[in-house]
Amino acid sequence: MTIYLDHAASSWPKPPEVVRAMVECMEQYGANPGRGSHEMAVKASRTLFEGRKQLARLFSIKNPNDISYALNTTMALNLAIKGFLKEGDHVICTAVEHNSVRRPLEYLKQNRQVQVTYVKTDIRGHLHMDDVVAAIRPTTRLIVCNHSSNLLGSILPVEALGELCRQRGIKLLVDAAQTAGAVKIDVQAMGIDMLAFPGHKGLLGPQGTGGLYVHPEIELEPLLHGGTGSQSEAIDQPTVRPDRFESGTQNTPGIAGLVEGVKWVHQQTPGAIYEHEWKLTQQLMQGLVGIEGIQVLGPEIGQAKTGIVSFTLADSDSSEIAFILDQSFGIAVRAGYHCTPLAHETAGTMERGAIRASVGCFTTEHEIEQLIGAVREISKHMKMQ
Amino acid sequence: MTIYLDHAASSWPKPPEVVRAMVECMEQYGANPGRGSHEMAVKASRTLFEGRKQLARLFSIKNPNDISYALNTTMALNLAIKGFLKEGDHVICTAVEHNSVRRPLEYLKQNRQVQVTYVKTDIRGHLHMDDVVAAIRPTTRLIVCNHSSNLLGSILPVEALGELCRQRGIKLLVDAAQTAGAVKIDVQAMGIDMLAFPGHKGLLGPQGTGGLYVHPEIELEPLLHGGTGSQSEAIDQPTVRPDRFESGTQNTPGIAGLVEGVKWVHQQTPGAIYEHEWKLTQQLMQGLVGIEGIQVLGPEIGQAKTGIVSFTLADSDSSEIAFILDQSFGIAVRAGYHCTPLAHETAGTMERGAIRASVGCFTTEHEIEQLIGAVREISKHMKMQ
Repeated sequence: MTIYLDHAASSWPKPPEVVRAMVECMEQYGANPGRGSHEMAVKASRTLFEGRKQLARLFSIKNPNDISYALNTTMALNLAIKGFLKEGDHVICTAVEHNSVRRPLEYLKQNRQVQVTYVKTDIRGHLHMDDVVAAIRPTTRLIVCNHSSNLLGSILPVEALGELCRQRGIKLLVDAAQTAGAVKIDVQAMGIDMLAFPGHKGLLGPQGTGGLYVHPEIELEPLLHGGTGSQSEAIDQPTVRPDRFESGTQNTPGIAGLVEGVKWVHQQTPGAIYEHEWKLTQQLMQGLVGIEGIQVLGPEIGQAKTGIVSFTLADSDSSEIAFILDQSFGIAVRAGYHCTPLAHETAGTMERGAIRASVGCFTTEHEIEQLIGAVREISKHMKMQ
Repeated sequence: MTIYLDHAASSWPKPPEVVRAMVECMEQYGANPGRGSHEMAVKASRTLFEGRKQLARLFSIKNPNDISYALNTTMALNLAIKGFLKEGDHVICTAVEHNSVRRPLEYLKQNRQVQVTYVKTDIRGHLHMDDVVAAIRPTTRLIVCNHSSNLLGSILPVEALGELCRQRGIKLLVDAAQTAGAVKIDVQAMGIDMLAFPGHKGLLGPQGTGGLYVHPEIELEPLLHGGTGSQSEAIDQPTVRPDRFESGTQNTPGIAGLVEGVKWVHQQTPGAIYEHEWKLTQQLMQGLVGIEGIQVLGPEIGQAKTGIVSFTLADSDSSEIAFILDQSFGIAVRAGYHCTPLAHETAGTMERGAIRASVGCFTTEHEIEQLIGAVREISKHMKMQ
């Protein structure tokens, strides 16, 4: 049995209810939601709405219809970024953003004269508010920020950013790829105007799901134009949500699974999941620091962080270490650049990448021990060579 | 048990292998494809490639990597249309296009000075090539055409359009929402430059899947920018396919199901599926024409068509008829406007919509008999009122 420590890429396994709900959808009501009034289609529609309700409750969103589904977080971020920013706008983001934020911003820089400032974090991935304040210009309309770095695991000060944005009339888009389900998120209390989230990581749903919350007062240009099952006769995309941002047939079986994943998170509570994952990262970091040649990236032991522990081993190639962990120890971690070159610059690991171990709500202390033991053995072996 | 005659919206049931493959993916290798080199991630990547291979074989596409996955056909069409057309371009489409083509085109008309010509079909949904030729301008760069009208079931002359496009240096985008899996498609023989298709209709996969084939010589602006697991360090979207058009995590369990759906279609052959569905539409049309007040839309009996039979009953509201069919007879059909207002204008049903019954590869003659009987009863009852 694989020891799966790649939860930051996709969580696995899922609660059994997730798969059961997908099977039930496929076998019992596989009709098109919102495209018919017969009972199977109505049941499919209800599943989509149930998902919105569960997500709204989890993130303290007032109106479930302000959540639209997407294929993945990247699609949600593209909708938010490209739909919001206009020619001449200035946007601030951080130097630990994922390519799903950086590449859309760079695209707009080249094609829509949008100006982009990357605010650096310190080497451990902590963002300092003074640096953000200093980057604000009269044309700043948006701050985009991931809630936790997918390389370093540091948690960014979203609440302080929300407060700053409110004071300055700037909107805040948060990329919750690493936190949705694993860190408490309250869009109202935190002042989040748009929240992009994956379904298949901390929310324990299947791949192919995710979504975007958009504050009711924010208007976006849709990313997709097409049929919505509503206002069929109109030439223009409907303005009513969620239809405005959801053209075409949605991933009903995937969302049926997501509903169960989110319910499971509710039952455990994101607070308890955070505690569980944090303890495991501390155990892992403590085990790793005693091994010769290991450098652990991100927050120090004792500091807040998500379930990510990235590290390097002397000057070894990270991919080689990950390969040995997989082949000789049956431990799945990720190596390389993690789609976040800026964060590697920040951490000083642009040349050899990093090994990233990431835990989930089902990870056990025993599995962490096995990883530590495996890394220790590899380190010894490398030294002997 | 519902008599499901809404296959044009989504096919149901699916071959049992489809659900089994989804469960296997969720339970055994739910890792992120292309985002890690450990065994589970490699298995997930292989599933995505297996899907591309199966689809390439089905549509006679040379290089499987010229197929990129999408959430649905609408997303594929948005990528093709918005990624291809530039300011000042002229595009020709037909008057039976779905809103998934019409709305992106209207958006470009308003925002990118793209000029759009809608070529009318006759009342039965047949497109005449002379009308298309007459619409060509020096600035015409693209013809967009659905392979079969989702209201009328008529089959459009894609091969002739392909020939015309080749002669005139115009590119051809085909919306195969109603034909992929149910009508033979050969992109090379038919001269199709881009093919958008759903996974959850004739290909018998789950909702949340679909894709776009793009000829290797056509370059599109991506719809999504983001992480691809490749060339992480580059600021720009990679140019290599399929990564260029596939940012973020793909719907691996959905595609695992789609692989099995496409395999099933291969085994049966699209030709045999077409024959089966055509016979059922003929049976249905013959049964309906004898009922007082019924007007059947689309091609006449004996003509080629896909598995769609739309009809009206005297001046009754189509939604009411569909509701009675569902509630009193357990028959699921779709009523209303079907996201294609232009086709309703063509057929003269803009005021009350139409009832659409659509068959699939598992539909039986007995089910068609039951629909005919139910409509006969409703017709009698309406007359007595």
